[in-house]
Amino acid sequence: MSNLLIVKGHFLYTKTAEKFEVHKDMFLVSIDGIVEGIYPTVPDRFKGAQVQDYGDRLIIPGFVDLHLHASQFLQCGVGMTKQLLDWLNDYTFDLEREFQNLEFARKAYSCFADKMVACGTLRSCIFASSSTAGTEVLFDVLKEKGIGAYVGKVNMDQNGPDFITETTEKSLEGTKYLINKFKDEPLVKPIITPRFAPSCSTELLRGLGKLALEYQLPVQSHLSENIDEVKWVQSLFESAKNYSDIYLTNNLYGQTKTIMAHAIYLDDDEKKLALKMDPFLVHCPDSNINVRSGIMPVREYLNMGLKIGLGSDIAGGHKMGLNEAMVRAIQLSKLVALNDEELQPLTIAEVFYMATKGGGSFFGKTGSFEKGFLFDALVIEDDNMIAEMYSLEDRLEKFIYTGDDRNIIARYVEGKCLSPIASRT
Amino acid sequence: MSNLLIVKGHFLYTKTAEKFEVHKDMFLVSIDGIVEGIYPTVPDRFKGAQVQDYGDRLIIPGFVDLHLHASQFLQCGVGMTKQLLDWLNDYTFDLEREFQNLEFARKAYSCFADKMVACGTLRSCIFASSSTAGTEVLFDVLKEKGIGAYVGKVNMDQNGPDFITETTEKSLEGTKYLINKFKDEPLVKPIITPRFAPSCSTELLRGLGKLALEYQLPVQSHLSENIDEVKWVQSLFESAKNYSDIYLTNNLYGQTKTIMAHAIYLDDDEKKLALKMDPFLVHCPDSNINVRSGIMPVREYLNMGLKIGLGSDIAGGHKMGLNEAMVRAIQLSKLVALNDEELQPLTIAEVFYMATKGGGSFFGKTGSFEKGFLFDALVIEDDNMIAEMYSLEDRLEKFIYTGDDRNIIARYVEGKCLSPIASRT
Repeated sequence: MSNLLIVKGHFLYTKTAEKFEVHKDMFLVSIDGIVEGIYPTVPDRFKGAQVQDYGDRLIIPGFVDLHLHASQFLQCGVGMTKQLLDWLNDYTFDLEREFQNLEFARKAYSCFADKMVACGTLRSCIFASSSTAGTEVLFDVLKEKGIGAYVGKVNMDQNGPDFITETTEKSLEGTKYLINKFKDEPLVKPIITPRFAPSCSTELLRGLGKLALEYQLPVQSHLSENIDEVKWVQSLFESAKNYSDIYLTNNLYGQTKTIMAHAIYLDDDEKKLALKMDPFLVHCPDSNINVRSGIMPVREYLNMGLKIGLGSDIAGGHKMGLNEAMVRAIQLSKLVALNDEELQPLTIAEVFYMATKGGGSFFGKTGSFEKGFLFDALVIEDDNMIAEMYSLEDRLEKFIYTGDDRNIIARYVEGKCLSPIASRT
Repeated sequence: MSNLLIVKGHFLYTKTAEKFEVHKDMFLVSIDGIVEGIYPTVPDRFKGAQVQDYGDRLIIPGFVDLHLHASQFLQCGVGMTKQLLDWLNDYTFDLEREFQNLEFARKAYSCFADKMVACGTLRSCIFASSSTAGTEVLFDVLKEKGIGAYVGKVNMDQNGPDFITETTEKSLEGTKYLINKFKDEPLVKPIITPRFAPSCSTELLRGLGKLALEYQLPVQSHLSENIDEVKWVQSLFESAKNYSDIYLTNNLYGQTKTIMAHAIYLDDDEKKLALKMDPFLVHCPDSNINVRSGIMPVREYLNMGLKIGLGSDIAGGHKMGLNEAMVRAIQLSKLVALNDEELQPLTIAEVFYMATKGGGSFFGKTGSFEKGFLFDALVIEDDNMIAEMYSLEDRLEKFIYTGDDRNIIARYVEGKCLSPIASRT
């Protein structure tokens, strides 16, 4: 069995959002990248096989970032006191233009990908830029890193600066080119990516919906991020019932697997629609505070049974990786609870579930160590003193709150150990 | 001039909270640890002296953390879903007890100090534990590191677990012992530290106030952190006009230089009193969210002209260093502004001022590079690509938002370069 992998350590994961599954000092067996089981000793049928022993380290599923912009990575933490529109005009759009320069694109996307891998984000749903050639570079870079991702060329044919806005035809053509080139890739796949409703003519939205159906591709976009944006959308699409309806009527909302980032200000009809069409709604807490959008009503959505994932939303969010997103999601939920006791704060297990199995289910069976799941994993090393003092769950919580890429000493995607990463902040 | 230091680089600091002073490619001259000036070329009178050239790096004042608990460091990020009282009982108090074991104290305080230095906190006001001998160890450890600090043995003679609560007499005696031992130290000095009003009998408070006056020592404590606490204080001190009054009437509120952490729920009389007695109020944003206390009305206090510093409040706060505190202070101020447009969000310059010159003034002339200030400084290295793309102010903002101890390549306290630190998260 050449694709047999046996890993020893302490395994922690969330089968449900209720609680952690904790397997202390156990052996996980993975065959062909798929978890076979977790055992107290190596089962007889695998006896003699080599064991990768991680000793007292924690082993957890890799993180899944359901929303971020690769072309904005270099801009993380810059212009953060600007309002959304100034931030876009003074920083973001100019930087996005640079990705038409393929040398720059390769350099910048390599930084992005290295940092992402370093932080333990092993699956992600990424907005590239409107440049088809630039987006092609991102596919190539991510393939080289060996991580899983959905990558979208950003579609926009109106309401943006000329230098990154394409014609409807060119936008659809480029999208189709990338689909055909990458649709059969095992790890890094295309996703239909209208920037957001205001950036797209109805013709473009219709064309994208058609491609989604034709190739059975997933869709990602932004929805209801802030109040001014929602008003603007209403004025642009007067016949639409609401913001969600614009995507829905163009086959971009649940007809295939769909991700909608933010979804802060959904009205009642939109909430019902979300229940019916079952998109992944992405909570991006840092971004939502940084650009002063608001707070997603996460507890309400969870109570309704909506699917919630987490997003760093680089570069509205300023930190790569899901640690910050998990912590900030809890912190915001605590602030909400200060004003309304019925809205219980999120637990560590709940945000961990969002960052692993919850968001991971967009990719299929990822984000858990249950039998049949892809073995995407991070090996976490903490200080000896801490390890002696605290329980495994406490140590994991401590990593989430205070740890960073230096604590991640190994990364597995579908059973394959990635090469070590040297990362700078 | 043996104590002459000339440093070259880009200098950024805040003389006022209004804006950054930016000196690109300049030479800073420091004599005997005190800034002489910043010059475009080396002045004639210093010609021939060696220049420490930091090239394209940013040089900023060291950070000042006005409130944190050294004995809680190992617990950072653990038990964060607990409510305050459970958190104290299940984690904090047990850990504080360990500091009676001096071997443990040395090990744990060394981790604490290394991390603090690594993160660029060069001045701080620290709660140790109630153990006199343990606190003595912390003094020694900090002296070895060469950083500036006020260190307080934590005074408590009631309403705490037996194993860390002392008799009034013993608490005062230990305090006096430490005062006499360390009062003439140049960098690491004693500070009177009643844990908070409920932990102290009136006799203890009175005795501590007496010591503060007798030795002209500064005072630090907690004030009005959360609503339940404020109610409890009212029931314990029925004759007190308000929470602040308890400290005031015992010579622990502005009679000597005073720090009060949190100060979230001050009533109108207390606000007036704060204006009059001029304490440093410490904003600890992460802690205030983590333990679900609330949000300090920072903009209101700044408008009133109150002195505000920043605190990591380890381990109510989970991250060492002031980067997180600055970012979270801005984020919280943005959330506040969402509900009240008149309360303008904090700017980068404002939080940077709090983290440097604002808080630094508790120590005298620190936290700025104006002539006559102590040269406490951090040298910040960022990525070449970033340096080419962004202005000096953008690069500093980026460091604040996304950087960590790895970006700090040198640290100066009063003109002396500290030894390099190897730090883990």
